[in-house]
Amino acid sequence: MDTQVIEVAYALDTFYFLVSGALVMWMAAGFTMLEAGLVRTKSTVEILTKNIALYSTACIMYMLIGYNIMYGDGISSFIPSFMPILSGADNTAAEVIASDGDIYYSNLSDFFFQVVFVATAMSIVSGAVAERMKLWAFLAFCVVLTGFIYPFQGYWSWGEGWLDDFGYLDYAGSGIVHMTGAVAALAGVILLGARKGKYGPDGQINAIPGANMPLATLGVLILWLGWFGFNGGSELKVSDVESANAVARVFTNTNLAAAGGVIAAIIASRLIFGKADLTMGLNGAIAGLVSITAEPLMPHPFLAMIIGMVGGVLVVLSILALDKMRLDDPAGAISAHGTAGIWGVLAVLLSNPDATFAGQIVGLVAIFAFVFVLSFIFWGLLKATIGIRVSEEDEYNGVDIAECGLEAYPEFTSGRK
Amino acid sequence: MDTQVIEVAYALDTFYFLVSGALVMWMAAGFTMLEAGLVRTKSTVEILTKNIALYSTACIMYMLIGYNIMYGDGISSFIPSFMPILSGADNTAAEVIASDGDIYYSNLSDFFFQVVFVATAMSIVSGAVAERMKLWAFLAFCVVLTGFIYPFQGYWSWGEGWLDDFGYLDYAGSGIVHMTGAVAALAGVILLGARKGKYGPDGQINAIPGANMPLATLGVLILWLGWFGFNGGSELKVSDVESANAVARVFTNTNLAAAGGVIAAIIASRLIFGKADLTMGLNGAIAGLVSITAEPLMPHPFLAMIIGMVGGVLVVLSILALDKMRLDDPAGAISAHGTAGIWGVLAVLLSNPDATFAGQIVGLVAIFAFVFVLSFIFWGLLKATIGIRVSEEDEYNGVDIAECGLEAYPEFTSGRK
Amino acid sequence: MDTQVIEVAYALDTFYFLVSGALVMWMAAGFTMLEAGLVRTKSTVEILTKNIALYSTACIMYMLIGYNIMYGDGISSFIPSFMPILSGADNTAAEVIASDGDIYYSNLSDFFFQVVFVATAMSIVSGAVAERMKLWAFLAFCVVLTGFIYPFQGYWSWGEGWLDDFGYLDYAGSGIVHMTGAVAALAGVILLGARKGKYGPDGQINAIPGANMPLATLGVLILWLGWFGFNGGSELKVSDVESANAVARVFTNTNLAAAGGVIAAIIASRLIFGKADLTMGLNGAIAGLVSITAEPLMPHPFLAMIIGMVGGVLVVLSILALDKMRLDDPAGAISAHGTAGIWGVLAVLLSNPDATFAGQIVGLVAIFAFVFVLSFIFWGLLKATIGIRVSEEDEYNGVDIAECGLEAYPEFTSGRK
Repeated sequence: MDTQVIEVAYALDTFYFLVSGALVMWMAAGFTMLEAGLVRTKSTVEILTKNIALYSTACIMYMLIGYNIMYGDGISSFIPSFMPILSGADNTAAEVIASDGDIYYSNLSDFFFQVVFVATAMSIVSGAVAERMKLWAFLAFCVVLTGFIYPFQGYWSWGEGWLDDFGYLDYAGSGIVHMTGAVAALAGVILLGARKGKYGPDGQINAIPGANMPLATLGVLILWLGWFGFNGGSELKVSDVESANAVARVFTNTNLAAAGGVIAAIIASRLIFGKADLTMGLNGAIAGLVSITAEPLMPHPFLAMIIGMVGGVLVVLSILALDKMRLDDPAGAISAHGTAGIWGVLAVLLSNPDATFAGQIVGLVAIFAFVFVLSFIFWGLLKATIGIRVSEEDEYNGVDIAECGLEAYPEFTSGRK
Repeated sequence: MDTQVIEVAYALDTFYFLVSGALVMWMAAGFTMLEAGLVRTKSTVEILTKNIALYSTACIMYMLIGYNIMYGDGISSFIPSFMPILSGADNTAAEVIASDGDIYYSNLSDFFFQVVFVATAMSIVSGAVAERMKLWAFLAFCVVLTGFIYPFQGYWSWGEGWLDDFGYLDYAGSGIVHMTGAVAALAGVILLGARKGKYGPDGQINAIPGANMPLATLGVLILWLGWFGFNGGSELKVSDVESANAVARVFTNTNLAAAGGVIAAIIASRLIFGKADLTMGLNGAIAGLVSITAEPLMPHPFLAMIIGMVGGVLVVLSILALDKMRLDDPAGAISAHGTAGIWGVLAVLLSNPDATFAGQIVGLVAIFAFVFVLSFIFWGLLKATIGIRVSEEDEYNGVDIAECGLEAYPEFTSGRK
Repeated sequence: MDTQVIEVAYALDTFYFLVSGALVMWMAAGFTMLEAGLVRTKSTVEILTKNIALYSTACIMYMLIGYNIMYGDGISSFIPSFMPILSGADNTAAEVIASDGDIYYSNLSDFFFQVVFVATAMSIVSGAVAERMKLWAFLAFCVVLTGFIYPFQGYWSWGEGWLDDFGYLDYAGSGIVHMTGAVAALAGVILLGARKGKYGPDGQINAIPGANMPLATLGVLILWLGWFGFNGGSELKVSDVESANAVARVFTNTNLAAAGGVIAAIIASRLIFGKADLTMGLNGAIAGLVSITAEPLMPHPFLAMIIGMVGGVLVVLSILALDKMRLDDPAGAISAHGTAGIWGVLAVLLSNPDATFAGQIVGLVAIFAFVFVLSFIFWGLLKATIGIRVSEEDEYNGVDIAECGLEAYPEFTSGRK
């Protein structure tokens, strides 16, 4: 191939990667708005603070440690090593040309794309533990998840470790990213307990409505847009006909899975509750997106829609089931990312002939167990030391005043607790 | 041309198309925020639900039916056929190279770009019928508009049907998309009637202020950004000097038309009402964007600004006129997309020497008549069967509780109806 | 180089420029949401109106005058000329090919990218003078800043005037754009005075909390995303390996500087106030972004984070200092863009061996003095003629009703003034 063409192709792939990464960064805004809309006013400033702080912490920890673990050479296929790869130089033109197409893009564009994924995983956690967890305990957990837990298991699949060898297929991370975040959240929720008043003494489940539905809707639409980067960028290459077609297919399928998730969740909620519940529709969109994330390339668009629809039904049932189990998740994050994430990993079997049932199951079990056990241990350590839950008084008055000294909407609220 | 260069060019055009499509998808968030900001709190959840559901329905219906009608071979230049083109394979490298530049991009990237356009048309409807239309009747209409009415008339122009032959020029769809949405909305508004209290018995027009102006402003800024995809992507190709220059011109003109629309509408409202009315400025931006959409390439940037300014004045006058006619459009959508859409189609004559007065007028009349008649019939059928308007009691209490069982801002509102 | 490759590279660079410009345009939404969240409800509609009007005015003035000043040939290296360069034709394929890589992109894509920068500068002003400045006086100043002051000094550096010759280095405009906006704002704030009640007679400083924290947070996240275009596009070229690597580095560093700014500002506010102050975290993000803007390419990502962290601490101290000086800036814009902008220009010395202390200092002093003096004169002229401050009564009741005739949240507020 002509050397100039190779340079332009490299530039196009790098630019495609950077645009995709910027879209995934934008998902941070999506999670922030979604969660801020689904909590009560008295917990809104704190969830906003957690979200900008977790994104920032994730970026820093992944630069300092996580990326160097996840994509280093590894001690074994199970245990990664720490290689300071980020400090390495970027590719030179001579290297790129000599590689004749093996090097697609700038190393730093790869880092930029990966760093926003780890932030996504952590964003899932903040929604589930909202309204009652201490800010600084949360950020301490963020350091550990983004610096160690996520990249350690990420190395198994994307760093060419044992899960990759075993044939676990997870295109953009239904399991590696979304279920990971949901499982870390689940461990936290178990140790943290439900918000005061969520579950009554005789088994009642009390709705605690979110304070700002337009914000929550905006959040989901931001996530929907950002997901084109999340899945679309995960093809890693766009600069030839086959890759470009693949990216187009990924965009189309991602969109249709989300659409299917919305419609299925709204119909399901209409049948179950008698009303078209907006929050279920919103979680249906996310569930549809998570469901297609493990394999957005191979399904026909019609199948992508069906996969999303199944995700949309599952998220409604999962939210009801978690409430039955008295696991209080204000944002529905464990259901939308965890339950739908598991379904997404299994749905790879519907369209990708290379996927095996064993490979997908082993991947799910391994990631779930590893993330859950480590998260549980670390949340437990935090609980035993600095504590993870705010005082009853602070929870009653709202974590905003206690932790951040600010009200989210000082002129609006009527003082309802 | 070198085969590798053809592949990279194809990839660049596909990527450009996908980025443009993602920006148009983002317009769904724009309409959602705009409409949620312009209705009252008691109707906010329902408008949010309608918007995510209409976008999802549009994507599914266009995949299943609409796209296959609009871009199939057609039975005649008037009547499209149903060809399952979406099920076809994507282009191969061999085909692309053999075509020597005739094939620019992935077939699926075309579908992705087109599907977000049909959603745009339907988004226009939701704003006009807000606060009083039944959710499920609305979604039933959405199925018909996005599956049949829009693609049927779209075939005439963009599917190389008779309007294309006749010389009707409408670059990105001032008429085909925006006026279509506005006309479908107009038919609905006529059959639906005004919101209770909007018009008094003695001809008074009562302002019903929107509940959340920052949201409405955000919506317009999202639309503004998304429009760079809407118009910028409609050049269909970017990969050579001439195309790249064209896309740059389209971006520049789109931006200046919106800017002109804002300034003209604010000055007009200052002169007419004595105040710089924000909602008029916002509608001015949209009107400016709609006005330039039929021809964003040929005008000099200065002319683009003027075209937008005329649109900005027209939208103010049109909103006043519709209120005089007791046509209640809470979002101003009929004016911003319909009136400005007509102006946009005519404004092609100012800069494009290939445009003819007859071609533009016939296009406008044909699209208007077709969409209005079919929409009126279908809205009428819905009215006669399941009904299109909520009960007086539900309207008084708010459609949110009645249809969705949720409040948008449960902690903010003081109970004002 | 093959002519077809040159065309594709030109197209890629143009598209990269347009995408970057669209992201910078999106920053207008960021400023709008940030400022709308940080003012009180009674001043919200007016700040929204100012923001859409200033963006529109900036685009029009820069097309009519500013761009033709900033990038014309100049009368001397100090005094620009007015050359109607925007009216010139775009590049032809023959010119591009003959230039053999000297022409990267469409002239109009350059205009589009530049025009959104001038809007950014003006957006900074609106936050600082919020809640008390007359709308039309503000827009009159906008005409002058965007048509004359900004492009005049911009010519010195980016139009190849004397500051460029002198070795002043400012990659994407920490000084040229951000400090310029902040200094123009500072002159206005001095002449305007503080909001009623902000400073007590005995030196008390009263907090006036912003009305909508989620909106402010959204604004910052929008700015963060938009900054990838602001800095990333300022490399001007992406189409070869070296340029692509550079753009990737700029993205990475921009992200990490913002992350560093957030963390440093939150920790600083925790140490100083005992609480993790969200608004400080938000201003920390902006300060981090502004700090890296003068040199986002040369630093190692770790250094970029440190530069952002210093910015994050400085913005907290600067906000406190300005309040001590009774300079009332509701959005913290002077600190986040001015103080951090100065730091950013100096921080170039940490990583760019071509930077000189003299060059950076002379640049800062020249831009500061020029912008401050001219702004002070023009604000003073406005004050002496049409007046710049609303009446006490209008300020008490809110500028929204007085200037725009609308309430931002008519159903939410309890009437608190």
